[in-house]
Amino acid sequence: MKNIQKYLEDNKDRFLNELFEWLRIPSVSSNPDSKDDMYKAANWAKDALLKAGADRATVYETEGHPVVYGEKIVDPNKPTVLVYGHYDVQPADPLDLWDSEPFEPVVRKTDLHPDGAIFGRGSCDDKGQAFMHFKAFEAMVANGFLPVNIKFMIEGEEEIGSPSLGKFCEDNKAMLANDVILVSDTSVIANDVPSITTGLRGLSYVEVEVVGANRDLHSGTYGGAVANPINILSEMISKLMDENRHITIPGFYEDVVEATAEERVLINEAPFNLDDYKKELDIDDVCGEKGYTTDERTGIRPSCDVNGIWGGFTGKGTKTVLPSKAYAKISMRLVANQKPKKIAKLFEEYFKSIAPDCVRIKVDYLHGGLPVMTPIDTPEYRAAENAMETTYGKKPIPTMEGGSIPIIALFEQILGSKSVLMGFGLNSDAIHSPNEHYGLFNFYKGIETIPYYFKYYSEMK
Amino acid sequence: MKNIQKYLEDNKDRFLNELFEWLRIPSVSSNPDSKDDMYKAANWAKDALLKAGADRATVYETEGHPVVYGEKIVDPNKPTVLVYGHYDVQPADPLDLWDSEPFEPVVRKTDLHPDGAIFGRGSCDDKGQAFMHFKAFEAMVANGFLPVNIKFMIEGEEEIGSPSLGKFCEDNKAMLANDVILVSDTSVIANDVPSITTGLRGLSYVEVEVVGANRDLHSGTYGGAVANPINILSEMISKLMDENRHITIPGFYEDVVEATAEERVLINEAPFNLDDYKKELDIDDVCGEKGYTTDERTGIRPSCDVNGIWGGFTGKGTKTVLPSKAYAKISMRLVANQKPKKIAKLFEEYFKSIAPDCVRIKVDYLHGGLPVMTPIDTPEYRAAENAMETTYGKKPIPTMEGGSIPIIALFEQILGSKSVLMGFGLNSDAIHSPNEHYGLFNFYKGIETIPYYFKYYSEMK
Repeated sequence: MKNIQKYLEDNKDRFLNELFEWLRIPSVSSNPDSKDDMYKAANWAKDALLKAGADRATVYETEGHPVVYGEKIVDPNKPTVLVYGHYDVQPADPLDLWDSEPFEPVVRKTDLHPDGAIFGRGSCDDKGQAFMHFKAFEAMVANGFLPVNIKFMIEGEEEIGSPSLGKFCEDNKAMLANDVILVSDTSVIANDVPSITTGLRGLSYVEVEVVGANRDLHSGTYGGAVANPINILSEMISKLMDENRHITIPGFYEDVVEATAEERVLINEAPFNLDDYKKELDIDDVCGEKGYTTDERTGIRPSCDVNGIWGGFTGKGTKTVLPSKAYAKISMRLVANQKPKKIAKLFEEYFKSIAPDCVRIKVDYLHGGLPVMTPIDTPEYRAAENAMETTYGKKPIPTMEGGSIPIIALFEQILGSKSVLMGFGLNSDAIHSPNEHYGLFNFYKGIETIPYYFKYYSEMK
Repeated sequence: MKNIQKYLEDNKDRFLNELFEWLRIPSVSSNPDSKDDMYKAANWAKDALLKAGADRATVYETEGHPVVYGEKIVDPNKPTVLVYGHYDVQPADPLDLWDSEPFEPVVRKTDLHPDGAIFGRGSCDDKGQAFMHFKAFEAMVANGFLPVNIKFMIEGEEEIGSPSLGKFCEDNKAMLANDVILVSDTSVIANDVPSITTGLRGLSYVEVEVVGANRDLHSGTYGGAVANPINILSEMISKLMDENRHITIPGFYEDVVEATAEERVLINEAPFNLDDYKKELDIDDVCGEKGYTTDERTGIRPSCDVNGIWGGFTGKGTKTVLPSKAYAKISMRLVANQKPKKIAKLFEEYFKSIAPDCVRIKVDYLHGGLPVMTPIDTPEYRAAENAMETTYGKKPIPTMEGGSIPIIALFEQILGSKSVLMGFGLNSDAIHSPNEHYGLFNFYKGIETIPYYFKYYSEMK
């Protein structure tokens, strides 16, 4: 392992420059105009895997954006680790809130990253974290230490709900066969408080349209007599939660596995300071379901957020319009055992039931993902625990993360293997926001930790 | 009068072509980039008045967009009619809903306008209607029939609440001195049901900002624990009206002069067919304050409409963002004797009082106008009544219009004269919407009617 660590130290600057190349490709999967950039980013990953030491690497076509697959089989009788990551990124807008160009990465220091952080879309989510695996793999190969087989599956549709990956897994079960899936697309609690994600919320994402009159109207001539779809949409949104911020959709909580008293105690043992949390977000108060702590609200409780709303005149100045239409994008985070499509259906039924006769409603299901729970009493998990304990000097804490990686549940269904979510980001890395960044400490700590995972995992299997 | 009517008939095509020139200038007063076009449109009006026969016409600077003034004084001892109109127009967006270019007028037939209608921004509101006065004036001068003095004041800020016109009137009281202000910026009930507007609602227009965290957040990591300003804004908007669509802002109705039972009977005597109304708007139901008819809701009752809302991700596809900010433009239509600034203040106090601690609120007052009631037992009104009866063959009905012309109330305060609102549009002319149009019938009927107004008015004074 010493050689590997020396190799990593000797090649630090090169690793960073290589990652920058990848980050410069604006592979925004939700943008229909990004097709060329998606291929560019996929091919870049394929070439990077080959250079790092893969026996083979290929860009596989799908009905959506391509999947990059690469492997190095050291011995078919040995266990296999499948590394999953994604090369697609979130849209960069609102662009005017970025302090540097989203697709021209730069290193800047911050309070939480005194050694510097890489600022750029995808720096943490997930190019930066996927790339740690490429480089750890390169170091293991270069130093003749790869104790198990390794496979890489790097997709291009994670940020839009991985619509093509299920079929890709179905179609390539043999090729993808593995004993564990290793994923770095999550966070640690803090750089001195390592943690491993053992739960992820699911997602059910819908778009709603509320239509009033057949055209925009003059708000003087018609105001007060004809439905205003923005007012109505607002009223309907207000009926999604009650005064305790409990979601009011009938049947919404039906499949929720309530956490036991013991589990709730555990969740609240993770280091958390409400004052620091509020200060960091510059808010006077948190806001969530009555009867639960902040960690519970994001870890074991579902939520309902309007991700976007628009309608009427939104330019400078004033326009006295009574608009014809109003829209909202609404997503619900789910916990075990809620199911995305069932939730979307319950949402649609309820939303339509509360619509007054003066408007017409359309609800489109955009995408979803199942919630995930991973066991912590397995060699797969313990290998990650030992690896982090070695490099951080502290045993990592198992945590529930509020975000979703919808494909994790599908992996288990299709490939039959559990995932280990050993991520190295921080929640404050602004991964879906302007100024996304990834600490240099985190980037290098990840590359340092991953080879230990292979070491411990091979020793335990 | 025969000569005048022949003159009008002989010059119909030229009048239309001249109006088209004016309509091609995109004088959108709310657009800060329109400055040059505002001057262009003002100068065009000045030249048009001179060509029509004004003794003098001038473009007056203001702190905002310029005011065009022109006059022809036939005898200082005779009464004076001041014609008011505006050369500014509403923004044209959403552009994609226009069937032809908003600033390239064309004539197309419609069901309500079998003779054709002029499609283009400002065709009805108000260039087309102001221009009728230019041409009626030209015809009267050309045929040696101008029985009273005439003055024109054509402003460029009506659509943004006429912020500079009050001062202009104050500064030029002597120049503007008049016995009646004649305004064509309203509608008739139908082309075979003439009407004159005797009431206008006022307006109080605000913009609100709701701020949650100091940056956009990942809706997975934070959703359910940190305030979503869109959800909160929606909830706050839903609290502006109760289940009877009665506005809940404390004190909002304090100054409302309730209509008497007799007045309500009169209002509901105007021809109105609810089924036709719903069909024309393609709605299954109307929507307004309980206990009032549609004509009452827009004529004698205040209203509260969200004119625009925006926040979060509004592009194609999905983004799981928990936004930092959400915005809405909200306007309230007022009736006698509500006061715009007082209402805005009540709104702000209430809106802030219902905001939870987890968000911060900003309320900006954008503009407003007082409601108007004009008496119908005056020579000024009866002249309009007789003029319309002559050209339409039916006595016009006095009606309350839901829209606002904020400056009308100011005229009375500053210049001491009442206005007569003799407009020729239709409510279906889409004046603040895509595909604004103005019937050729209406345009020519207006030009035909206006000289009769001068005739009857001079006979009665």
